[in-house]
Amino acid sequence: MRVEVINTGTELLLGKVINTHAAFFGDRLFTLGLRVGRQVAIPDGEEIRQALLESFPRADIVLVTGGLGPTSDDITREIVADMLGRELRRDDAIWRHIRAFFVQRGREPSPANERQAMVPEGAVVLSNPHGTAPGLYLPAVPGETPHLFLLPGPPRELRPMFAETVDPILRKLAGGDAAPRPWRNFKIFGVGESSIASVIEDALAAVPGLEHGYCARLGEVDVRLIGTEEAVAAASEIVRRAFPIEIVTESEDSLETVLVRRLAELGQTVATAESCTGGKIACTLTDVDGSSAVFHRGYVTYANEAKADLLGVPEAMLAEHGAVSEPVAGAMAEGCRERADSDHALAVSGIAGPGGGSDEKPVGTVFIALASRGLPVVVSRDYFPLDRLGFKERVTREALDLLRKRLDGLL
Amino acid sequence: MRVEVINTGTELLLGKVINTHAAFFGDRLFTLGLRVGRQVAIPDGEEIRQALLESFPRADIVLVTGGLGPTSDDITREIVADMLGRELRRDDAIWRHIRAFFVQRGREPSPANERQAMVPEGAVVLSNPHGTAPGLYLPAVPGETPHLFLLPGPPRELRPMFAETVDPILRKLAGGDAAPRPWRNFKIFGVGESSIASVIEDALAAVPGLEHGYCARLGEVDVRLIGTEEAVAAASEIVRRAFPIEIVTESEDSLETVLVRRLAELGQTVATAESCTGGKIACTLTDVDGSSAVFHRGYVTYANEAKADLLGVPEAMLAEHGAVSEPVAGAMAEGCRERADSDHALAVSGIAGPGGGSDEKPVGTVFIALASRGLPVVVSRDYFPLDRLGFKERVTREALDLLRKRLDGLL
Repeated sequence: MRVEVINTGTELLLGKVINTHAAFFGDRLFTLGLRVGRQVAIPDGEEIRQALLESFPRADIVLVTGGLGPTSDDITREIVADMLGRELRRDDAIWRHIRAFFVQRGREPSPANERQAMVPEGAVVLSNPHGTAPGLYLPAVPGETPHLFLLPGPPRELRPMFAETVDPILRKLAGGDAAPRPWRNFKIFGVGESSIASVIEDALAAVPGLEHGYCARLGEVDVRLIGTEEAVAAASEIVRRAFPIEIVTESEDSLETVLVRRLAELGQTVATAESCTGGKIACTLTDVDGSSAVFHRGYVTYANEAKADLLGVPEAMLAEHGAVSEPVAGAMAEGCRERADSDHALAVSGIAGPGGGSDEKPVGTVFIALASRGLPVVVSRDYFPLDRLGFKERVTREALDLLRKRLDGLL
Repeated sequence: MRVEVINTGTELLLGKVINTHAAFFGDRLFTLGLRVGRQVAIPDGEEIRQALLESFPRADIVLVTGGLGPTSDDITREIVADMLGRELRRDDAIWRHIRAFFVQRGREPSPANERQAMVPEGAVVLSNPHGTAPGLYLPAVPGETPHLFLLPGPPRELRPMFAETVDPILRKLAGGDAAPRPWRNFKIFGVGESSIASVIEDALAAVPGLEHGYCARLGEVDVRLIGTEEAVAAASEIVRRAFPIEIVTESEDSLETVLVRRLAELGQTVATAESCTGGKIACTLTDVDGSSAVFHRGYVTYANEAKADLLGVPEAMLAEHGAVSEPVAGAMAEGCRERADSDHALAVSGIAGPGGGSDEKPVGTVFIALASRGLPVVVSRDYFPLDRLGFKERVTREALDLLRKRLDGLL
């Protein structure tokens, strides 16, 4: 079944309001075995008519967000009723809900709110506990119109409504009680998308009944497999054999989630000593719920004095080698681990730029060190010629992956 | 002129990646006096053909992102060449750039990368310093095709390319060598969008020759004014009078950029002591180029022991009041400032959740403290019932704004 999404809202096209609807629907529908074939954003007003006209012949299901509000440019309800030749009637139960919604907040509904209680003939009302306008579901008319859902724009109204009323209807449309399609997601670290593809693309393309895709981020690539049980199993073996060391996880979990869980299983802790990442490694680890069990402290030692004072890096070493050097990164990691009394310590020192580079150590140079209780410290030199924020992100992920390799016994 | 945006990328429809392109283009085009009339997201592969066919008769300018990569489903370049009846030829300069890009990173390009050097006849090459695939600009053929831009999907490649090569071309298309329209952006902190609108909306609507818009993020709202010189000046006065304390800046600079610049002007420094934000305040400050002049160190004291050990918070105080309390946040800030010997210190302690809340201090409770040399410490209690990442972001911005108010003499 082909699903299309139409988002109405001038604010989505003016910049700065990021449209999260497409990602939300994509994610929810994937687990139902449905795919969004197209997503369109248009301004409030008349453009919805053309967008619907284009979708009707292509789609089996159309999800529309926005345009159900009380202001003059909220006209989704009226345009749809007109296009489908349905009359609009005031629904007294909805009108009572709207009045109650306002009264509860010590306000009165305006006459404009009464339009929100209008329902096209034959529509199923989807209740909205978090706002005034209900959603509407217009079942398909075979050969004429697809299944049509009119949903509110604000995510805090849309998301609960989707879970409570839209999801069960879509589940039925998607195939009664059919189970979601088998799928698997491999997260691969430190290999580029084109290199991955050059190794596994031909083999994956030869697996019958398999769909696959790649999604690259800084340093990481997701390889997603979907299809029959057998196809996903066969393809998974191909990926596993090609990247035995580089696979971070076979789930959708992030690298940091994998790490925190692994440390918790081992009953171990990690501390951080950061120069060029400025706290991003600590921040990323503590994004994970439950990280307080495995992360107790971090040092952001941006100035040389802080490296000496907080981590015990010898001032002579800083003077001789410079802060961005293998010995200093190693001393940061060791000093951090000892002072924090942690099982592991990650330390980074590099040149984020745009200033501070030299011929010998250009902007993008970084030393990443890992100290672990009872093991010699390891330091790697890397070069990530990215902008400042990209550099911080890339170094953070490289450091976390260094620890992942250690915990997995690959280092 | 009507602009349409087409984003290709299966990952945009699978719910794995939030599409930030629409917001980015909307924002950039606004300053050029252009509006995005429609944005469409489609999967990788053949769907681009239908999307272009629909856009061509409607649009004057079409911006396409994605599908320029090396893998088999990256076919934007080939489809466009086919639709326009243009031959593809290998551009040797691009191929040299791609080879150099790989060599610089100690790798070899794969044969698949050679496709990225193919250019349709008559296309202008838009260089890509941050990746392999260049962008392509195909000028309009009057009566046949609109101006067509093929751009890379990854934001860190797209954004610099847009600024350096696309923006100047669009500027010409938008009105020859006309100067950009006068505009001003006010960043307002700590007041909700509807509250701001209720204060200034009527007054702004009455200014002739003015367009305005709001854009809300966590804790911040941008009020954007664009129009004639006189209209922007008159509207700016309305905004300034309404929010004398809450305006962070009258530019597009971020709060952290404003802060780092202000501290540098004053010759002052700030240090950080973070519990629930886990390093995010330090990371945000060090996102700003030049922050090393004003930020020398930060402490991430996630565990109680770290608060005592690194910041000197008395253990009796931690036992009596708990880590999430006014006295502890205050002691963290004072201990941090003294040990770092900085002019200011920000400290936060709160409950990010999902666990750890109580009736008295529910998840979302946070204490934010600011110590400044020679002044009494200030501590504010706040409540941000958001998810974990939203909470960290919101608390970070609130802490930075506390320092902004102090530097501006408003505290």
